[in-house]
Amino acid sequence: MSDHQADLIVHARWIATVSADNTVLENHALVVRDGRIADLLPSALADEKWHSDEIVRLDDHLLTPGLVNAHTHAAMNLLRGIADDLPLMTWLEKHIWPAEGQFVSEQFVYDGTKLAAAEMIRSGTTTFADMYFFPASAAKATVEAGLRASLFCPLLDFPTPMGAGPEDYLRLATDAMDEWRHDPRIQIGFGPHAPYTVSDAPLQKVLTLAEELDVPVMMHVHETAGEIQMAVGNTGERPLTRLQGLGLLSPRLLAVHMTQLTDEEITLVAETGTHVVHCPESNLKLASGFAPVEKLRQAGINVALGTDGAASNNDLDMIGEARTAAFLAKGVSLEADALPAADVLKMATLNGAKALGRDEDIGSLEIGKQADMVAIDLNRLETQPVYDPVAQLVYAATRDQVTHSWVGGRCLMNHRQLTTLNEALILKNAQQWQQTIAGAEK
Amino acid sequence: MSDHQADLIVHARWIATVSADNTVLENHALVVRDGRIADLLPSALADEKWHSDEIVRLDDHLLTPGLVNAHTHAAMNLLRGIADDLPLMTWLEKHIWPAEGQFVSEQFVYDGTKLAAAEMIRSGTTTFADMYFFPASAAKATVEAGLRASLFCPLLDFPTPMGAGPEDYLRLATDAMDEWRHDPRIQIGFGPHAPYTVSDAPLQKVLTLAEELDVPVMMHVHETAGEIQMAVGNTGERPLTRLQGLGLLSPRLLAVHMTQLTDEEITLVAETGTHVVHCPESNLKLASGFAPVEKLRQAGINVALGTDGAASNNDLDMIGEARTAAFLAKGVSLEADALPAADVLKMATLNGAKALGRDEDIGSLEIGKQADMVAIDLNRLETQPVYDPVAQLVYAATRDQVTHSWVGGRCLMNHRQLTTLNEALILKNAQQWQQTIAGAEK
Repeated sequence: MSDHQADLIVHARWIATVSADNTVLENHALVVRDGRIADLLPSALADEKWHSDEIVRLDDHLLTPGLVNAHTHAAMNLLRGIADDLPLMTWLEKHIWPAEGQFVSEQFVYDGTKLAAAEMIRSGTTTFADMYFFPASAAKATVEAGLRASLFCPLLDFPTPMGAGPEDYLRLATDAMDEWRHDPRIQIGFGPHAPYTVSDAPLQKVLTLAEELDVPVMMHVHETAGEIQMAVGNTGERPLTRLQGLGLLSPRLLAVHMTQLTDEEITLVAETGTHVVHCPESNLKLASGFAPVEKLRQAGINVALGTDGAASNNDLDMIGEARTAAFLAKGVSLEADALPAADVLKMATLNGAKALGRDEDIGSLEIGKQADMVAIDLNRLETQPVYDPVAQLVYAATRDQVTHSWVGGRCLMNHRQLTTLNEALILKNAQQWQQTIAGAEK
Repeated sequence: MSDHQADLIVHARWIATVSADNTVLENHALVVRDGRIADLLPSALADEKWHSDEIVRLDDHLLTPGLVNAHTHAAMNLLRGIADDLPLMTWLEKHIWPAEGQFVSEQFVYDGTKLAAAEMIRSGTTTFADMYFFPASAAKATVEAGLRASLFCPLLDFPTPMGAGPEDYLRLATDAMDEWRHDPRIQIGFGPHAPYTVSDAPLQKVLTLAEELDVPVMMHVHETAGEIQMAVGNTGERPLTRLQGLGLLSPRLLAVHMTQLTDEEITLVAETGTHVVHCPESNLKLASGFAPVEKLRQAGINVALGTDGAASNNDLDMIGEARTAAFLAKGVSLEADALPAADVLKMATLNGAKALGRDEDIGSLEIGKQADMVAIDLNRLETQPVYDPVAQLVYAATRDQVTHSWVGGRCLMNHRQLTTLNEALILKNAQQWQQTIAGAEK
């Protein structure tokens, strides 16, 4: 007779723990109590030791930590495919910024984040790092979806639909930090857009406040060669040097993109403990350049993975992104053993959690951590036969094979059915926005 | 009252014809008679003009030509994931060649090609160009699946499970050509493996026979920098120069991979009308280098798209491959407008048909061509809203959104249900092979 009461027991054919030694357990059970992982043990022993009213058996599945999308602009899902195959500045200046200027509102962000949340749940993401306007609306959508998020409040020198300038943006950010301080799912940080859109004074304020409030900072850094040339032309200084001078390089900073790095800059990033968020599909699609991921890893830098927004990807699929990252690291380094499958799974989970300072709670399946996990059905023609389940996930599976999702032990998707979101309503709202926006584009 | 009798009418929300001007029709019907496209007209007019007992309405779908996978090794699906994240020569010499030497047989090829055929149908491919042992077994599996194939019979200097040397391979190839001469679905060609595995004498025989029998030739060419260095070291000559000297460069040749090309070689390929088959995911995964796709296109070269085998990809998903191709072309050329969505769809369809000399019959949806077509359901969270259906297919859809497949008007998949293949049996056979092979690897 079992003598321990659990809330949920998940038996899985394989469990990729993403622990220090990348252990993959076979025929094990993951036991959840009070939202956290209470035990990991062979399935055969679980029935003796644990009792639960909720038992899920996943005989053909790989269970992994919930994926951590370390950089996106969730609400931009409503602009998915509005302008493709265009040079970066044409794309931004002629399409994205005008559309945002005309349509972005609290309702846009709420509806767009709901669409994104549904897509993320369906593709295995349980935590996302967002950087978009009206983060309070994004937080509301996130909490309703049951996901975790780290929302980085935008800050730029110039006005946007959200505010007139840095003072407005900083106030909105600190208000949001106050509002969400006590919700363990929502983390609020500062999101100064990029070195070329934020001047020194507001950056210094961001740094002071971030340290005072102990919150992370996310910034697009060295995304393209062009922005570096512009900075050097204007000031004689590369943006990363400027950020170093301002004191921004630290374990508090998530530097996103980083496609253009000298060897000295890689050393600097490593020495300061700055995290890098790699967005390979966006970098490819916008022709931004190749982040030197293998060099970053070899320098000991923590590299997380993000999809970027759906307007430059065009999806929020972290399984596809992991595959592209694994491929591209090999192609760029010309080493076929670069970024192996287990390492890219870590990049897509634990490294993201570390970058956000949330790795005590999430990012791996270990006793004591939050029960954030997803199941992938490998019993499909496309992922058979199975020699190595993690390689199958990274190199052959697609997002539609994700069957279950839990955050803190709460089920967000059960056999592909969303439990927290109304899919039909989300689709209807998305189509209404499309009609409004496409009508205005014509 | 309609006055024309059809065998099938498919109404679709969008039809990407892949005609010369990339027309995308909205709310049109495609009419099939005797296996060919008899009409393409607005849905509203189709009911007046045509009658059929078989009418399919696809209100949320994009209909495209069936995808043409211009290079794969289908039966290697049974080796999917057997050895990943390894340098090319370790992968080949320690894993792939030993496994093939031990296990490849007529039954292996038949079972493996069945698994591959099911995967290809489910991901939108209707024609594939194969290069693997025992092509007669592959042809049998292909015909049972209802697909079209161009099977390139391997030829190497050394013995394999299929034969002792070039004489054997040539005889097997010409026997297969005789056997399948009258089946319009099956085309047989010569597949000399690569410049570094086939010497001049057998290559000259291939050329003579290919011209006499009017069949195409497929060869791995300039896949890696290493093979070129080796050739130059041994003979002072780059492989492409040697092939030119032998007279092999012509519209009869499909040169696969081509990651290493000088500007002079690009001119040579263009002037000789040689086709290039681009396999971006395999080139990335094996760290082979980047094919200069934009330069090839600008030189007027016909570039087709292939997945390569599942041991180096690890799937046969042409939608994913098209996406990778579109991404990588932008990343490599540093031009975000390189290889736009409509062009990569053409690469994945009509260009493949052209490379195989089959474009009079397949590759686009035009009146008179074979009714080879697939439907993709865009009414999913991941592909909503729709601003541009072709961009949605390339940049946001996955293979699981393919709902229907027809070859010559015959339905191979109906609402995701395979009509010609026994999925459960295919899976069971794959798992049995996996147990045998993995057991031997240990």
